[in-house]
Parts: sequence; C-alpha cells; structure tokens
Amino acid sequence: MGRIPPATVKRLCFYLHLLERLKKEGKEYVSSKELAERLDLTDTQVRRDLVYFGKMGKRGMGYEIEKLIKELRKILKIEKPRRAILIGAGNLGTALLASPFFRKRVEIVAAFDADINKVGRRIHGVPVYSDCEISRVVREMGIKIAILTTPPDVAPDIAGILINAGIQGILNFTPASIKSPPGVFIHDVDLTMELEYLSFFVEEE
Amino acid sequence: MGRIPPATVKRLCFYLHLLERLKKEGKEYVSSKELAERLDLTDTQVRRDLVYFGKMGKRGMGYEIEKLIKELRKILKIEKPRRAILIGAGNLGTALLASPFFRKRVEIVAAFDADINKVGRRIHGVPVYSDCEISRVVREMGIKIAILTTPPDVAPDIAGILINAGIQGILNFTPASIKSPPGVFIHDVDLTMELEYLSFFVEEE
Repeated sequence: MGRIPPATVKRLCFYLHLLERLKKEGKEYVSSKELAERLDLTDTQVRRDLVYFGKMGKRGMGYEIEKLIKELRKILKIEKPRRAILIGAGNLGTALLASPFFRKRVEIVAAFDADINKVGRRIHGVPVYSDCEISRVVREMGIKIAILTTPPDVAPDIAGILINAGIQGILNFTPASIKSPPGVFIHDVDLTMELEYLSFFVEEE
Repeated sequence: MGRIPPATVKRLCFYLHLLERLKKEGKEYVSSKELAERLDLTDTQVRRDLVYFGKMGKRGMGYEIEKLIKELRKILKIEKPRRAILIGAGNLGTALLASPFFRKRVEIVAAFDADINKVGRRIHGVPVYSDCEISRVVREMGIKIAILTTPPDVAPDIAGILINAGIQGILNFTPASIKSPPGVFIHDVDLTMELEYLSFFVEEE
C-alpha cells in the first residue's frame, strides 16, 4: 500500500470528495464511467486506480459508494480526523481555524504564534502557544502533522524545529521552499496556481 | 487551443511553476525526463502535453526554459497579470490581499465586503467596496475573474450577482456548491483535500 504513487494518492482524494458529495445527494452506487466523467479522467484510469482496493465494483451496478468511501478513508489514514498543530495564527491561519469544514477534517490541538498578544488566548477554541513551545508540545502530544501558515522568511527555521521534534508531514502554505529529510513529507499548497488554472478558461479582456 | 482538456491545463500550471523555479536556479534547458521525474509523471505524458506547443525540444538539449515559460504563460492567458476582484475581506480574503506572491500573479482591482466598517477603507492597498456595488464595478471595469472568500451561506447569491454582471471565472474558496451556466467556469479550491493527501504519507500515531 505504501507504494501507491503520489499522483494516484491525489486522485484518491478527488474520488473521496466526489463520492461524499454523491452520498449526500442520496446515491448508493456509482460507475467508473461516471467517476471518470465527473473528474475528467478516462474510464480505464479510474478502474486501474480502484484496483488497489480489490474487486469492489459489482457488474452492472458499479461501486457501492458507502463502502468505497470507507475504504478510501482507511487508505488515506483519515478514518478519524488526524491530530495536527498550526503554526502562524495570522489571517490565513485564523481563516483555517475558523472554517468548520477544515476543522471537521482535522483535529487542530494547538496553534503557535510569535505574537505574545496572541499567546495564552484561544482562537476559535484552539489554544495559542508561543513559538518557543513548539518542540515541547509536539513531543509531549506525539503530533505528526503540522500546518505552516507563518510569514515565509521564518518558515524554513520553524520547519527545522518541527522536523527535529518529530513532525512527519508539513502542509506548507508559505511560498518558502522547505527541505525534507528522508521520512518527512512536505506538501506545498500554492494558491496562485489555482488562479492561473482558472484564467485559462476565461477570455482576456 | 480551447480544446485542451482541463486535466492537461492543470499539468501546464505545474510545468510553469517548476520551470520558473528552475529558471531561478539558473538553469537554461530541461529534459522531458527531468520534468517527468520532478512532477511524478511519465516521460511520454510530458512529451505529449508539450506537443501542444509545437516542436520545442531540441535533440539532446531538451526544452529551452525561458521560451517554454513564455509559451505557457501565453497559453494560460497570463502574459500579464489578469485583473480580478475579491469578494469577502475576512481572514482568508485579507490573507490573499496580504500575500505579495499572490498579488504578483493577479491584479486585484477591488475588494467587496458586507461589513460597512470595512467599506471605503483600503486593505493592503486595495479599495473595499460594499457588496451592493459588485454589479456596477464589474460592469464598469469589465472584470472577468472573481475570487470568492465570503461565508459559504451567502456564496451562491453573490455568485449569481457576479455571473449576471459578466464574470466568467470564479475561484471559489468557499465550500458552497455553485452552479455554472454555460460560458462561466467555477474552480473550487478545497484546502481539506490537501490535508488528506498529506496524511497518506504520515504514519498514524
């Protein structure tokens, strides 16, 4: 299972979100053809991806949505929300803390900020600690995932502290480039790319 | 050109960002093999994608980075930053307005908010208008792209106003599902998916 290529993992996330939407709409089964059409993939690609889960499709019926959601959440290691910390309680950090949709997916147990006016407070229910306490809190709570929303100039140093303390995955919202030692996975989120993607579909003025 | 499939457009955005990084590192040429390895694609896939741009690879040398960047920016219609408006100057909206990396890629000409305390002010240099003025400003300035960072409950109504006023592309940061009439492209940004992707690579506690 550990050998699923990253691009496939990405598609599994897309399948999961689409399946959850279909479930909400009251559907029970979905064909690989419908999944392919809605996600702009080929039928063959979808079937090949879902082969990882054994024979789940029923002839003529397609996949049982509820069952596939359960399997996907297991594979992605999100059967229950993962615990994480957030570093940088500025506008973006606060926006994530404020989002019930984000908070439903991840259990943010602590936030960290360099601003002493924020330390000791709670933001949307999450306690804010000083940056100096990152190492201690990560070790004590055994946290593996960190969400990085600091200013870019301090991001590499903070990432070093996180990795030293035992963090294995960093969701990097900053434009800083962060080096990942073996066993640590850095996922860069680049919101400008989303905008560039959109602009292709919009006529120029 | 309009017939490039969405999944290919997505990859073009990834090529562009990688090429810009390579250029910054001082590289002049790159092979399809290197592009493929760094983006977790097959060599064949990369060559097939770049066929859209005619024969740009030089035998034994690979692609000229500068030239390919220029071509990609032209295809994606971002030779110069596109003009856009932002609706919802809350935490997320403000975070986008505050990001020099985001602002370098898009010219945000106006922001809108329902909070009258924000109206008439400037946030990171961008004037804030009342939501009531969306239609007028979009028409007067001929804006085609909108960034939606409002609370989800008002998002569908705001989107309706935007589309009526002539907006052709909406970057939807809200979890609200927005219906797109023909000729309008809605791109949903789902930050929870990034987290789920990351969690696959991190051992459970």
